[in-house]
Amino acid sequence: MRGTVLERPGEIRLEQRPDPTIVEPSDAIIRLSATCICGSDLWPYRGVDAATGPSPMGHEYCGIVEEVGPDVSIISTGQFVVGSFFASDNTCEICRAGYQSSCIHREPVGAIGTQAEYARIPLADGTLVATPEVPPDDLVPSFLAASDVLGTGWFAAVAAEAGPGTTVVVVGDGAVGLLGVMAAKQLGAERIVIMSRHESRQQLAREFGATDVVPERGDEGVAVIKELTDGLGAHSVIEAVGTRESMLQAIGACRPGGHVGYVGVTHGDLPGRELFFSHTHLHGGPAPVRRFLPELMELISNRTIDPGRVFDLTLPLEDVAEGYRAMDERRAIKTLLCL
Amino acid sequence: MRGTVLERPGEIRLEQRPDPTIVEPSDAIIRLSATCICGSDLWPYRGVDAATGPSPMGHEYCGIVEEVGPDVSIISTGQFVVGSFFASDNTCEICRAGYQSSCIHREPVGAIGTQAEYARIPLADGTLVATPEVPPDDLVPSFLAASDVLGTGWFAAVAAEAGPGTTVVVVGDGAVGLLGVMAAKQLGAERIVIMSRHESRQQLAREFGATDVVPERGDEGVAVIKELTDGLGAHSVIEAVGTRESMLQAIGACRPGGHVGYVGVTHGDLPGRELFFSHTHLHGGPAPVRRFLPELMELISNRTIDPGRVFDLTLPLEDVAEGYRAMDERRAIKTLLCL
Repeated sequence: MRGTVLERPGEIRLEQRPDPTIVEPSDAIIRLSATCICGSDLWPYRGVDAATGPSPMGHEYCGIVEEVGPDVSIISTGQFVVGSFFASDNTCEICRAGYQSSCIHREPVGAIGTQAEYARIPLADGTLVATPEVPPDDLVPSFLAASDVLGTGWFAAVAAEAGPGTTVVVVGDGAVGLLGVMAAKQLGAERIVIMSRHESRQQLAREFGATDVVPERGDEGVAVIKELTDGLGAHSVIEAVGTRESMLQAIGACRPGGHVGYVGVTHGDLPGRELFFSHTHLHGGPAPVRRFLPELMELISNRTIDPGRVFDLTLPLEDVAEGYRAMDERRAIKTLLCL
Repeated sequence: MRGTVLERPGEIRLEQRPDPTIVEPSDAIIRLSATCICGSDLWPYRGVDAATGPSPMGHEYCGIVEEVGPDVSIISTGQFVVGSFFASDNTCEICRAGYQSSCIHREPVGAIGTQAEYARIPLADGTLVATPEVPPDDLVPSFLAASDVLGTGWFAAVAAEAGPGTTVVVVGDGAVGLLGVMAAKQLGAERIVIMSRHESRQQLAREFGATDVVPERGDEGVAVIKELTDGLGAHSVIEAVGTRESMLQAIGACRPGGHVGYVGVTHGDLPGRELFFSHTHLHGGPAPVRRFLPELMELISNRTIDPGRVFDLTLPLEDVAEGYRAMDERRAIKTLLCL
């Protein structure tokens, strides 16, 4: 099969790789319906996260089950399924508490690489969620978005306790931030402020439910948020970038007693004293997408939400390298790779 | 009147200072029934927090109202009252959300200094809570504890979501940590682990409700907590020290999806990536003691709890310098100063 490999920072290649096979009895093999490139794939692509030699890439996926191992009993061949970037048993105490991405048996799907034609998914019964029927093609991008960016934006909004009557600020206008706007809207937020200086992203944010746009950043951005909120700060802040600066912006924009939901992989240290006196709640980490998948897949199936709109570039898998370049240069929000 | 002043790090003096008077119409003047020394007073005493010249000391207090300003209508002279280390209006949106220590009109009582015979308390109606009658003398130490260390330990336990069925770990065996144990017990925790290597403190922790004692610290301590909790970590962790090391110990001891309540003033930076992947909830800051005062004062009045037991050294106010030395050298958990 063909699969994507990061040879070294900046160098993406589509290579011929062995077809995946059942390794553990709880595995499934899926044929990808589509795959895509994640903002977090840019960390190793840019050399910010050190890679240890050539690495298979991709951790977002949806597709048709081709084969299942002997211990798989819930998922069956022919089903259309969506899974998350951490395989999870969905039965351990941590999974049952809703933290499947910290499952005691979790396995990173990114180590397998889903920017490919086929993928082996571990712990298939716990990891995969099937639709009742194979969905129409036009819904595939939205199901693919549910695999990571939608689930991550949703978790951030839940962690930030977005809900009726709240003002929600979203730091980061990438796909996760934009879908954080969508999640906040679905969760009933009263006012949703996107911090963005890119017109096309501002526009999509407004279509997803943003009521205000703040282009300022850092301390200046925090000051504008304070002005918009009677000097208090927002009830809920979604952080979807992952730098020290974006975390400080998120914490600064939040009122005492408010909630920051952070899902950008935090790079750098946080000043303890500033965090202490901010009086905020801080919760985040790798999104337990599996917790939300049944609900999100239902909302997609009945066309209540259309998260696939974050894909503003569609390329065939063979053009994956151009897909990375377009995202790296911010010419694209998110690249869908069709098969 | 006589009042305590930190001349420079390590040098505490009881000095003759002007009697306080009503400055703002919302002020009250109280005659202290007793006062005490806080663990956080040791930061400037030790020179860790820079002082800008001689500073009045003390922010814990209970006493009899001597005089009130013309705008004070709830509190009246002759009442026995307890207040917190931040004066608060108790009416703004932040106060109503339960974060009185971030009140939009807050004033630090520490700037006034309550290790003295009298104190001016700003925003008296919002800040002070009165008992129905002047309580018997033997309850004064417990009411004094409610002013800060009990309220702070209680907030930490609430922030850590200690409750029925939970395992709670307490990092720090000072007065706040010990009263965090008491709070966790009152909130219904099933198992309470104190991390302590001091026998007298371990003993008091057990009397307050601790079920387990772990003397190990750092990574070794985290490993012991993991062993005690099926490899998962505790549901709830109270952090009551305020160093980078103690924060990492607290975060490490907490399970994914668990809650860390931190009330030690955090000194140093927190590693973002470690926090991210811990998957914990982090909440804390200066305790909104005012939120809890009515409930805590009721529990003290009806003798359900006896937090005054954390005072293991009682000295007359004139020996305040010895009180600081005893706490600095860890000869005393907490010093009560009688008047």
